[in-house]
Amino acid sequence: MSNKTEPRTLAGFMELMPNEQILFEQIKQKIEKAYQKFGFLPLDTPILELSEVLLAKAGGETEKQIYRFEKGETDISMRFDLTVPLAKYVAKNYGNLSFPFRRYQIGKVYRGERTQKGRFREFYQCDIDIIGDGELSVINDAELPSVIYNIFKELGFDDFTICINNRKILNGLFESLNQKDNSVEILRTIDKIEKIGKEAVIEELQKFKVTKEAIETIMNFIEIEGNTDEKIQKLQNLNIENETFKLGLEELTQVVKNVRLFGVPDTNFKVDLTIARGLDYYTGTVYETFLNEYREIGSICSGGRYENLAEYYTDKKLPGVGISIGLTRLFYKLNELNLINADKKSIAEVLIVPMVEDLSIPIKIANILREKGINTEVFLNDKKLKAKMKYADKLEIPYVIIVGEDEINSGVVKIKNMNTGEEKDWKF
Amino acid sequence: MSNKTEPRTLAGFMELMPNEQILFEQIKQKIEKAYQKFGFLPLDTPILELSEVLLAKAGGETEKQIYRFEKGETDISMRFDLTVPLAKYVAKNYGNLSFPFRRYQIGKVYRGERTQKGRFREFYQCDIDIIGDGELSVINDAELPSVIYNIFKELGFDDFTICINNRKILNGLFESLNQKDNSVEILRTIDKIEKIGKEAVIEELQKFKVTKEAIETIMNFIEIEGNTDEKIQKLQNLNIENETFKLGLEELTQVVKNVRLFGVPDTNFKVDLTIARGLDYYTGTVYETFLNEYREIGSICSGGRYENLAEYYTDKKLPGVGISIGLTRLFYKLNELNLINADKKSIAEVLIVPMVEDLSIPIKIANILREKGINTEVFLNDKKLKAKMKYADKLEIPYVIIVGEDEINSGVVKIKNMNTGEEKDWKF
Repeated sequence: MSNKTEPRTLAGFMELMPNEQILFEQIKQKIEKAYQKFGFLPLDTPILELSEVLLAKAGGETEKQIYRFEKGETDISMRFDLTVPLAKYVAKNYGNLSFPFRRYQIGKVYRGERTQKGRFREFYQCDIDIIGDGELSVINDAELPSVIYNIFKELGFDDFTICINNRKILNGLFESLNQKDNSVEILRTIDKIEKIGKEAVIEELQKFKVTKEAIETIMNFIEIEGNTDEKIQKLQNLNIENETFKLGLEELTQVVKNVRLFGVPDTNFKVDLTIARGLDYYTGTVYETFLNEYREIGSICSGGRYENLAEYYTDKKLPGVGISIGLTRLFYKLNELNLINADKKSIAEVLIVPMVEDLSIPIKIANILREKGINTEVFLNDKKLKAKMKYADKLEIPYVIIVGEDEINSGVVKIKNMNTGEEKDWKF
Repeated sequence: MSNKTEPRTLAGFMELMPNEQILFEQIKQKIEKAYQKFGFLPLDTPILELSEVLLAKAGGETEKQIYRFEKGETDISMRFDLTVPLAKYVAKNYGNLSFPFRRYQIGKVYRGERTQKGRFREFYQCDIDIIGDGELSVINDAELPSVIYNIFKELGFDDFTICINNRKILNGLFESLNQKDNSVEILRTIDKIEKIGKEAVIEELQKFKVTKEAIETIMNFIEIEGNTDEKIQKLQNLNIENETFKLGLEELTQVVKNVRLFGVPDTNFKVDLTIARGLDYYTGTVYETFLNEYREIGSICSGGRYENLAEYYTDKKLPGVGISIGLTRLFYKLNELNLINADKKSIAEVLIVPMVEDLSIPIKIANILREKGINTEVFLNDKKLKAKMKYADKLEIPYVIIVGEDEINSGVVKIKNMNTGEEKDWKF
């Protein structure tokens, strides 16, 4: 055969080299372990769904990005997030689930976005959600920041901030300013303040015919300064006579109090009144998380409270709160910035290098190590010692045991530390 | 909104309830751990590939089952196995990989098969392969059965058999009988002996114009009886003067010897001369694995040796050997037969049940347990004690700690074992 197909991968699809994949798996596993530590249950839904089901709610930008096709008579779409499949799942299995239903799901989702550096069309989302049956106490909103805190500490970060806000505060403020009809545009504009700056925000707000007084109040509001308690105090001092605002402030106060109770230190969370998160989905608490020295990465973990998870599928009222980590992009950015704190860089911890023809003893040693729970590879192929050591080196395997005639006769091998060069005797 | 979309899942797509998902994840994790224990490197390739790349080799039955579609100008297919993506990956990254390249991949693959009970269109494959650069010693063929052995022991099975054969023995036999042109049909027919029986096989072979003498030799051959060593002895005694046959027998002898060296007991493997595994792919050692009391499940782990992994993409000769576990179907069958030996049935090991308004102490206790590595959930929502205990019960959480005023005042809680009802004091 002379015509070869060029082996290539679709643009916008991450495919890592083994040493990077090892790091990726470690991060994924740490996130999963943290989710389990708080008792979230695993869920694995199909990547394909009926378009009618998956797109019951979608529209606009999202729908354009969907990978959608027909197979036989069936109109199929690839999932674009893990929330819609969750809604379907909870509505479908309502009678067989225990509430609050706390689930985690880590899986790939698909969005045919314009390709650009650091943007992926296939990417992992790592989600947790707590779904209530009819109602869900606001204290659940305070538990999620403690999960976020756990994860990023576990990943070796200290200088990160979980920013918390409450959509009711924003909505109530707009209501009190008679700007309810503009609230979507105002929220969308405020959300951009980090990117486009204060002046541009004011300019945009003027376009939506927000009155000068209202703009002033809004800008004063989002610029409220101080530590968490001072901000809450200042919000109270505004004396805004609006029930939505008051309820939001009450919820935020509760969340702040309980976030502390859950063990998140004040250095790792704050109230940030500029955060709005999306437009029609969240109805209460919202979160974004930033690495303070690397704000340019954007939020690394976001989420919030919603009134009703599955209204497109069921009459049951299912309030929930959830967070999501976009792992593929996070990994890409951390890797680029050299910020990954890996516990280990290899899968095998020991490479056995046999220098004899009869492999009985090398394999026996490997089996002893594996029984001790140590990942062990035997170099099985006939190569020069130098090539075998180079293999260990390239795979960053931390320990090598060479097994030759002398070692077999004496029953003692040397365990070589590949980083320090040190050797230690071991009677196997 | 009065029109709800019925929440449903595509036919042929597995979607488990949480208690089943917990079991599924345990099996998946044990397989992954076993792969890592032998030093296989993780790989995660995209689920979508360019059709031109993915289908460079495919054809016939496989191609019909592919989920293939266009997105914009791009002709895309969903992967139907993990081997073709591996071939692409190795050909693409040849210069940056260390050989032998030992990789594992656990991921979903897609085949639009006719839906029937126990058949899935989306299913997990758990693969390992060892790829050599130009050559790969036959001892690698002996290591894989030890990985299979490890996995099924770890999954709690004792009575399973890894059946080993070598395609060169079959091919050489056919050559010596001047049936080389019929070899594909003969192999395909022999492969069915388990299903259709001896008489039907003879009948089919006659249709392919295999001579009476040849059929007799073939049937005598596949009915060679005895233990492993006896079978090998009898194969030698056939004195077949064919180089392919001799090479195959030499390889099989080597593999058997080294499989023992790798610690697989004779009770868990055997030579089975009827196993052929596919038609144009495998070129040497082939494996199938059966639960002896449940042969009807079919092979639970199969694979073999191939001459050249990536000939459609590269001129480099890349021989390899690999195995695959079809996890989704395996899980379905094991679950149906009640054969899953789970270490644990819940994610949370402890449920903290607060009977006080101030959650400081319940959360403090949860944090202590989590720091000890114990998955702990706090029941955060306002329910009656009975409802909270029912929740623990339904989620099969093994321990419950009720925290009321008395416990807070005394600093001692009772840890209740939900299986035995026993309670134990713990000073937190």
